[in-house]
Amino acid sequence: MREELVKSDETLDDLQLKGLYIIQKKLAFRYGVDAVLLANFCKVKKGAEVIDFCTGTGVIPLILSGKSEANSITGIEIQDDFVEMANRSLEYNGLYSKLKFINKDLKDKEYLKGLNKVDVVTVNPPYKEENSGIVNLNDKNAIARHEIMCTLEDVIVAIKAVLKDSGRMYMIHSTERLADILCLMRKYKVEPKRIRMVYPSTKKAPTMVLVEGQNNGGKFLKWEAPLYVYDDMGNFSEEINKIYGRI
Amino acid sequence: MREELVKSDETLDDLQLKGLYIIQKKLAFRYGVDAVLLANFCKVKKGAEVIDFCTGTGVIPLILSGKSEANSITGIEIQDDFVEMANRSLEYNGLYSKLKFINKDLKDKEYLKGLNKVDVVTVNPPYKEENSGIVNLNDKNAIARHEIMCTLEDVIVAIKAVLKDSGRMYMIHSTERLADILCLMRKYKVEPKRIRMVYPSTKKAPTMVLVEGQNNGGKFLKWEAPLYVYDDMGNFSEEINKIYGRI
Repeated sequence: MREELVKSDETLDDLQLKGLYIIQKKLAFRYGVDAVLLANFCKVKKGAEVIDFCTGTGVIPLILSGKSEANSITGIEIQDDFVEMANRSLEYNGLYSKLKFINKDLKDKEYLKGLNKVDVVTVNPPYKEENSGIVNLNDKNAIARHEIMCTLEDVIVAIKAVLKDSGRMYMIHSTERLADILCLMRKYKVEPKRIRMVYPSTKKAPTMVLVEGQNNGGKFLKWEAPLYVYDDMGNFSEEINKIYGRI
Repeated sequence: MREELVKSDETLDDLQLKGLYIIQKKLAFRYGVDAVLLANFCKVKKGAEVIDFCTGTGVIPLILSGKSEANSITGIEIQDDFVEMANRSLEYNGLYSKLKFINKDLKDKEYLKGLNKVDVVTVNPPYKEENSGIVNLNDKNAIARHEIMCTLEDVIVAIKAVLKDSGRMYMIHSTERLADILCLMRKYKVEPKRIRMVYPSTKKAPTMVLVEGQNNGGKFLKWEAPLYVYDDMGNFSEEINKIYGRI
């Protein structure tokens, strides 16, 4: 029985995409709109090799397996219980040929060096300084500004390590970190190529930003029309409903 | 007669603000919505000392003289005929006590070093990189729009040179340069503090960006609600009409 793959403290949720399901903890980290937006922002060509860092529940690889014709999608995650759960989602959906979840630290440079370079990297990293899993695992007492900057830098360094020349990275993050993101991308020669701001509605400040970068890319930054999560009536916008497969 | 201050190839335009007028060439560079948006984005406290680089027709100092209680506002411009014309606007409006227009190159480090440090710098610099598009080096419009006389880095260096510690800079620029702007600000320790994107309408990509920075400021980047130039009917938005003093 496929249902036996789901434990009593977990839920089985419909991704509204080609019959795909995802297993999530009832009370622990559950994927949000940001992961869904990122999976819809990125461009994955037929035959592409893809890595998703900070993969968590594996939601981005699962969505990409339904939306793209990628050759392989590997989710890398530092927390072993997430990886164990993501592997059960993989088994539930029967996606053995395409998907893989690996329990590794993205700061493990030797491991990343041993991987084949990929066409696409996606990442939905921890937003909040105080919630940064990587910092906590290294030293729970050393949560300082400098270390938090290193965390975002670790992500960019890992992206750089695994991307093919001209390969693309896609990230979603909170808007307040955009200066950090762009400056770190430039530092490691992953050129910002495309940005889309995510607004709660037409009259509010943006909360999230979608960024595409190209490894060793030339300088040209394209901006896209804003993405609104809610319409002026307070309902989900038409675009969000489309992304979620509701219309 | 005040009207004698206006030459035959010039127009006298109502700034819709406390009876202020501006002299502009009929055919050469005339101020646009960007200058008006910048003058409305910046925060000038009572008694502040202000410098406006790339002042052109002097539109930003003129608007700020009407909108703020600044102690002094100095427009600096490399093209002498603009300065001559801006000085006639100053004379027309009788703003001798507050405003000053100076014909100087912002790359003149010795000159900038001799100035008193200021609280606020505004700048609406040329948008286009020098190598982008065909450029006539003698064309005054080209100088105003392309980085012929100064690069973006020159602008940031000049801002850094004249700002007080914790002083604020305000810039409007094209969105495609935002990565350059933020990285250069960081390079010279003028921390990005506030950003507002300017969209033609709710459904289009942003074309301009308003950026506030603080000299040696701490890291926190605030984003504002989007500014739409047109509403969904194709008319000027209510906010634009307010900014232009039409309602």
